Amino acid sequence: MVAAAPSIAHQSASDLKTLAQRTRQTARQLALLPTEAKNRGLEAIALALESHADAIVAANQLDLQAALKDDLAKPLYGRLKLDPTKLAGAIAGVRSVAQLSDPVGHVHIHRQLDDNLVLKRITCPLGVLGVIFESRPDAVMQIASLAIKSGNGVILKGGREAVRSCTAIVEAIHAGLATTGIDPAVVQLLTTREETVALLQLEDEVDLIIPRGSNSFVRFVQDNTRIPVLGHADGICHLYVDAAASVEQAIAIAVDSKVSYPSACNAIETLLVHEAIAPAFLPDLATVMADHGVELRGDIATQTHIDVAAATEEDWETEYSDLILAVKVVDSAEGAIAHINHYGSHHTDAIVTENDAIARLFMAQVDAAGVYHNCSTRFADGFRYGFGAEVGISTQHLPPRGPVGLEGLVTYKYQLVGSGHVSSTYSGASPKPFKHQDL
Amino acid sequence: MVAAAPSIAHQSASDLKTLAQRTRQTARQLALLPTEAKNRGLEAIALALESHADAIVAANQLDLQAALKDDLAKPLYGRLKLDPTKLAGAIAGVRSVAQLSDPVGHVHIHRQLDDNLVLKRITCPLGVLGVIFESRPDAVMQIASLAIKSGNGVILKGGREAVRSCTAIVEAIHAGLATTGIDPAVVQLLTTREETVALLQLEDEVDLIIPRGSNSFVRFVQDNTRIPVLGHADGICHLYVDAAASVEQAIAIAVDSKVSYPSACNAIETLLVHEAIAPAFLPDLATVMADHGVELRGDIATQTHIDVAAATEEDWETEYSDLILAVKVVDSAEGAIAHINHYGSHHTDAIVTENDAIARLFMAQVDAAGVYHNCSTRFADGFRYGFGAEVGISTQHLPPRGPVGLEGLVTYKYQLVGSGHVSSTYSGASPKPFKHQDL
Repeated sequence: MVAAAPSIAHQSASDLKTLAQRTRQTARQLALLPTEAKNRGLEAIALALESHADAIVAANQLDLQAALKDDLAKPLYGRLKLDPTKLAGAIAGVRSVAQLSDPVGHVHIHRQLDDNLVLKRITCPLGVLGVIFESRPDAVMQIASLAIKSGNGVILKGGREAVRSCTAIVEAIHAGLATTGIDPAVVQLLTTREETVALLQLEDEVDLIIPRGSNSFVRFVQDNTRIPVLGHADGICHLYVDAAASVEQAIAIAVDSKVSYPSACNAIETLLVHEAIAPAFLPDLATVMADHGVELRGDIATQTHIDVAAATEEDWETEYSDLILAVKVVDSAEGAIAHINHYGSHHTDAIVTENDAIARLFMAQVDAAGVYHNCSTRFADGFRYGFGAEVGISTQHLPPRGPVGLEGLVTYKYQLVGSGHVSSTYSGASPKPFKHQDL
Repeated sequence: MVAAAPSIAHQSASDLKTLAQRTRQTARQLALLPTEAKNRGLEAIALALESHADAIVAANQLDLQAALKDDLAKPLYGRLKLDPTKLAGAIAGVRSVAQLSDPVGHVHIHRQLDDNLVLKRITCPLGVLGVIFESRPDAVMQIASLAIKSGNGVILKGGREAVRSCTAIVEAIHAGLATTGIDPAVVQLLTTREETVALLQLEDEVDLIIPRGSNSFVRFVQDNTRIPVLGHADGICHLYVDAAASVEQAIAIAVDSKVSYPSACNAIETLLVHEAIAPAFLPDLATVMADHGVELRGDIATQTHIDVAAATEEDWETEYSDLILAVKVVDSAEGAIAHINHYGSHHTDAIVTENDAIARLFMAQVDAAGVYHNCSTRFADGFRYGFGAEVGISTQHLPPRGPVGLEGLVTYKYQLVGSGHVSSTYSGASPKPFKHQDL
């Protein structure tokens, strides 16, 4: 079936519910498709994006002109820009999603409950994703690809500043899908802030919300929906330099964890230093960090070793997202663990030590999605973990936790196949026992 | 360390936060224990329950006397009763939890990212569980055992009508734990409704809420907390009798699915019948269901075949939890699937058919935690699935979904161990490639 591409238009709240229901319906068809058909859909999208490239870049130019007029903040402007090179990279990204292994149809449990009564737990799409992001029109291509690969419908809401770019991209995606058996309605685009608010209310129509943007934006989404949210508001990561650390290793890891990308959520905000190593470590740290333009702030004990501004309670709770690092001297690994569990955001925390017992204690007791030993917190990333894609990093306790790849976009169902089996056979006065034999 | 048993007392909201923080702290110690130590704790609890048996049964007698005076509903009264036989069964249950495999410490991912840079994804306890239940004091023993086995602290809130029984049981549990290295504070008991409301607000201290009780009670909990809730409010399960069904099989499965335990969440509420088999099937069904005391209600098409009261829109949305069954004639499997996806609660839905293609379509398209072919919906149960325990049945889309065993009480963390590895090695102008080799 080759369906016509739906037009992209402004939706009222009740229209939006209807749109989401249509997305769910079409996603149910998508869910049935074999891997090859989904991959053909992705290739059709890539081809259409290539043939629409001029229109997309032209639309992006209009967004950029409007952004200049509106005095858009410089980092946002950079992320908004979509030139032919960046577009080609995004299209290559669509094709690389086709190469990823299909997360649907994996059998995790295959068990004979009794003769001819067989249970399977098998992965299946979640249904409909709601993805809300700021700027970055290239995210549309990546997210739509991941949604299709995982068999999900997706409702996208881009930033106001990227509306022309996003619309041109989704028109290309629809045109591509229209040449395949996949209904273009599986990918929807919203364009207004009112629609965002309405989207967050659609708990019966949308199964997962993925917000991409600033901490305050993510917190707004979390506070305004009952739909599960994949992601995190804060990334307050710590590095603890233990008494038994190699100073050289600790310096290198501290620099990488802070300097390589200070605004990343997996960059460190606070450095905890054991008092026994502080005299040897802190002066070297201060020199190297100054070379990298990092402003240090320290507690009283830190200030006895190096000349830095005072860190206050607020510093332990702040994600600077900048070249600023708070430093605190602790009297033990237990002290470091207690600080992290109190102030951390359960994202990623690392220890540098040559003492394996202390490292094991740290990794067991620190309550975070990532607990690292002798390496940089910056490895906390779906691509670096080898997932091939990352849909977000979750700091909640329940799975999925940490960097989430395609597997975060699927769930599972239990399939039970019998030949007339009834439960009364296995209960009552002389119950037949179950076999419970894994196949 | 042998700690004294904390006393059980009435908590104010701020006391409760302190109590929950203490529970989390002690749970962090519990999380470090090897399986054998946790199992020794369970055996100590079993022994203490045995030595406190008289006190527990006496406390239960007082609850029962008060219940009689308060005119407690008969089913609640039955569930409240804890005689020596039922208590012995619950104590055997504690020992059987010790036999279950430990859900903590399972390694799901073990991957070399590069030389000497090794990633592990390993299961770990969630932290602190909040379990709120009505009546059934035996639930205290089961839940406390499952919490300890999974390395979690637990805050229990029993029904007002069971307060003396629950208190006596928790005193025994504390006495048992006090003879071991496990801090008794890992198991806490709340006794007032005000505490329930306060507990639901402790999103930083409690990781998972498990409500056990009526649908309206679960819905109240879901509507009044931002903590994840494991469970379901409704169990509207369907059986679809396809055109290609064996009538004899369909009758047997319908009877078992409705009659064997009508108030169970996995009992069916609506029977969907293909129009082609309706003339052969419905009269037999009516006879057999009448023998079992089941009241049938039917749509207009059903009423042309059998003499039943009319089913209204409301019937399709109702969990009767009683010997009542709504019947609707549909013109196709697709019609049945559409009805189920519209009115169902995503719990468990079954098809009876000899047509494998139709069965596959049904199982792929019905959006439920359990999709069954030629067997009773009553198999939807953690014990019947071979999980050894059931902490709840989830009808949400995200995992854990369906019957949840001990694995629902754990999460995972990523452990990354290097020897000074920094991310800048793998980015920039000449990045070193990752190896991403599973070990």
